[in-house]
Amino acid sequence: MQLSKLFTKTLREAPADELAINAQLLIRGGFVFKNSAGVYSLLPLGWRVIQKIANIIREEMNAIDGQEMLMPTLIEKKYMEPTARWDLEVGYFAKAKSEKEAGFVLGWSHEEVLTSIAAKYISSYKDLPFAAYQIQTKFRHEARAKSGMLRGREFMMKDLYSFHSSQNDLDLYYEKSRKAYHKVFERCGLKAIYTVAAGGVFTDKFTHEFQVISEVGEDTILVCSQCEYAENKEITKLKAGDGCPKCNSKVSEFKSIEVGNIFDNGTRYSTALGLEFTDESGNKQPVVMGAYGIGLGRVMGTVIEIHNDKNGIIWPENIAPYKVQLIQLSGGEDEAHKIYEALKEEGVEVLFDDRDDKSAGEKFADADLIGCPVRIVVSKKTLEKGSVEVKKRSEKEATLVALDKLLASMI
Amino acid sequence: MQLSKLFTKTLREAPADELAINAQLLIRGGFVFKNSAGVYSLLPLGWRVIQKIANIIREEMNAIDGQEMLMPTLIEKKYMEPTARWDLEVGYFAKAKSEKEAGFVLGWSHEEVLTSIAAKYISSYKDLPFAAYQIQTKFRHEARAKSGMLRGREFMMKDLYSFHSSQNDLDLYYEKSRKAYHKVFERCGLKAIYTVAAGGVFTDKFTHEFQVISEVGEDTILVCSQCEYAENKEITKLKAGDGCPKCNSKVSEFKSIEVGNIFDNGTRYSTALGLEFTDESGNKQPVVMGAYGIGLGRVMGTVIEIHNDKNGIIWPENIAPYKVQLIQLSGGEDEAHKIYEALKEEGVEVLFDDRDDKSAGEKFADADLIGCPVRIVVSKKTLEKGSVEVKKRSEKEATLVALDKLLASMI
Repeated sequence: MQLSKLFTKTLREAPADELAINAQLLIRGGFVFKNSAGVYSLLPLGWRVIQKIANIIREEMNAIDGQEMLMPTLIEKKYMEPTARWDLEVGYFAKAKSEKEAGFVLGWSHEEVLTSIAAKYISSYKDLPFAAYQIQTKFRHEARAKSGMLRGREFMMKDLYSFHSSQNDLDLYYEKSRKAYHKVFERCGLKAIYTVAAGGVFTDKFTHEFQVISEVGEDTILVCSQCEYAENKEITKLKAGDGCPKCNSKVSEFKSIEVGNIFDNGTRYSTALGLEFTDESGNKQPVVMGAYGIGLGRVMGTVIEIHNDKNGIIWPENIAPYKVQLIQLSGGEDEAHKIYEALKEEGVEVLFDDRDDKSAGEKFADADLIGCPVRIVVSKKTLEKGSVEVKKRSEKEATLVALDKLLASMI
Repeated sequence: MQLSKLFTKTLREAPADELAINAQLLIRGGFVFKNSAGVYSLLPLGWRVIQKIANIIREEMNAIDGQEMLMPTLIEKKYMEPTARWDLEVGYFAKAKSEKEAGFVLGWSHEEVLTSIAAKYISSYKDLPFAAYQIQTKFRHEARAKSGMLRGREFMMKDLYSFHSSQNDLDLYYEKSRKAYHKVFERCGLKAIYTVAAGGVFTDKFTHEFQVISEVGEDTILVCSQCEYAENKEITKLKAGDGCPKCNSKVSEFKSIEVGNIFDNGTRYSTALGLEFTDESGNKQPVVMGAYGIGLGRVMGTVIEIHNDKNGIIWPENIAPYKVQLIQLSGGEDEAHKIYEALKEEGVEVLFDDRDDKSAGEKFADADLIGCPVRIVVSKKTLEKGSVEVKKRSEKEATLVALDKLLASMI
């Protein structure tokens, strides 16, 4: 993409009411636009990042036999009443002008909808297990939306639901899912800590959260650095300095951001909504269910909270909007265009700063703000040495790379 | 995908209240689930079709320099009031339980939102033209949702908006867009007729619709078969048998389905929302805008209305959920598994009917209903001749293909 044609521009200032680093950098870099409190547009650069996160999630969910689908946002009362989740404060309700009452709640979680769909297709133990997921926009009423992409009223989420003939089979899948989640976060550049937590409006049992340590986190967790066991402060009696219940090493307290969570829902939803199967002995039993969520915007926001410096974002390569930001300076225009075409030809994703009304300093500042992993500068000065200047966003020093070796070094 | 693991199954009957062929076949085939009137889930098979349509649209929109992004569903009053489109009957309004008034309308079109975003980034003629689009779920209040996927309350839409410094520049892009739309529909297996129409709540000018002739269409169009000029009955004085205003041949009347539309919005939105640019002479002018929509579910539904027979769907290859439905019959199990793996290895998309509790007749009926372009049957009988049976869904006769020639014939 040529920066001269990208419809967004970098901004000097973020809105005064955005305190979170992630929102400040995303807005200044032209990744997102704040439409309302807790409501953001994903601009072309931000959309590319989210699509990369989505594809990593897809690959890992497909690898544990998740089948992708898409459920509706508009959910009728008949789905949510049997589980007593219709009339909650978390919901936004949809009503047309001429209607007396709201007919739908905007989906904030889809256990009921998928359980009802499954009841149409599942009848025997032979139909189990199965898992289905969607990557979809969710809506949750937050009295005070804050923290940029970390807590919005409208946000993209991957929610997978698994269906089993026994608690044991769910336990096995729960463990597979835990591993898949660690892979997702690792590929996105995050170290997530598996943490025991409470279930909130989702379940009566304990649940498990994936927490990333960060000062801006809304959660507090107690972590044993020895065995990595962790508990969310809301459910634990552990205090900093106490002995870990697993290995007796001292635990420490951290603020952290929850980037994902997994739930053992047992038979709560299947019982309420009549999802039964006939077991091998011919007896009817309720299906045992799990639920597994990841917030995509929250992953993006967390990555930025972790990977930034005073100049801007430092994207991990897997989810960078482009791998390379290619900068043409005076005297390097023709060669820069050639390099741009050659890199594209090789399948390297390039954001090409071909603007002719910006100074070198402005271009360097924009490249640091946008945060692509590799910066290539093409100028008269570098070309006189038959080279271009290559610098990693995460490193301070640039190196000269010979023109005839550039392509091979980028693939 | 192995059919034994797909979580949906084909159904003998569609719901009694679904009169539209597209909904009947989509529900019976396990492509969609009807959650509420006008509200459907896309099940794994249906999601694959929609993703293929989405990718065709992406390729054609990217080819005319469209930049993909994603705008919110929740749209505040401040965006829609300046254009007098806040309080319309078409909208669903979102209100939380504890709120006195609805704070948002659910996006049913995004001219205002994108115009407001553009006002942040566009200031000079040098920033123009540009075009941005999204593929997003839209919400429209329909008193009586009907016709299956053809008219829903919640539906996926591609909406592209273009921004120009002059009417002439918009006219040029409008024509490029017209050609891109014809490519999209052609690739999806539809012949769409470019039709002059009225703008409804979108614009005061004439607009252009892409209409596919079908008895179940809600529109009536007058078409000249000679020069392919067409007008929507709602704006024309033409009657069947009248002379075409372009070439004087007789025009005919048809029922048709609108699968896309394009709008010359002029400066209506930019004036209302303050989107101006400074021209080459230093004068401020409102930006000239166009809008371009395609309903993805409606394309899917229309394809089925056009391409079906009494046994089921006949998917065009470009948007089929899988290219091949591979059926194993008694005695062909081992060889069928080998063929399944070999086809996957070659990148051929295969739905493998490996179920062992279904008769040959049931498997053939399901293959016809699901409608993949190619059916391959592997049985003891065919293997005795060193062959498998290959039949196109669109043809009646099957042919025997030697095992060693099968792969090459499928790539």
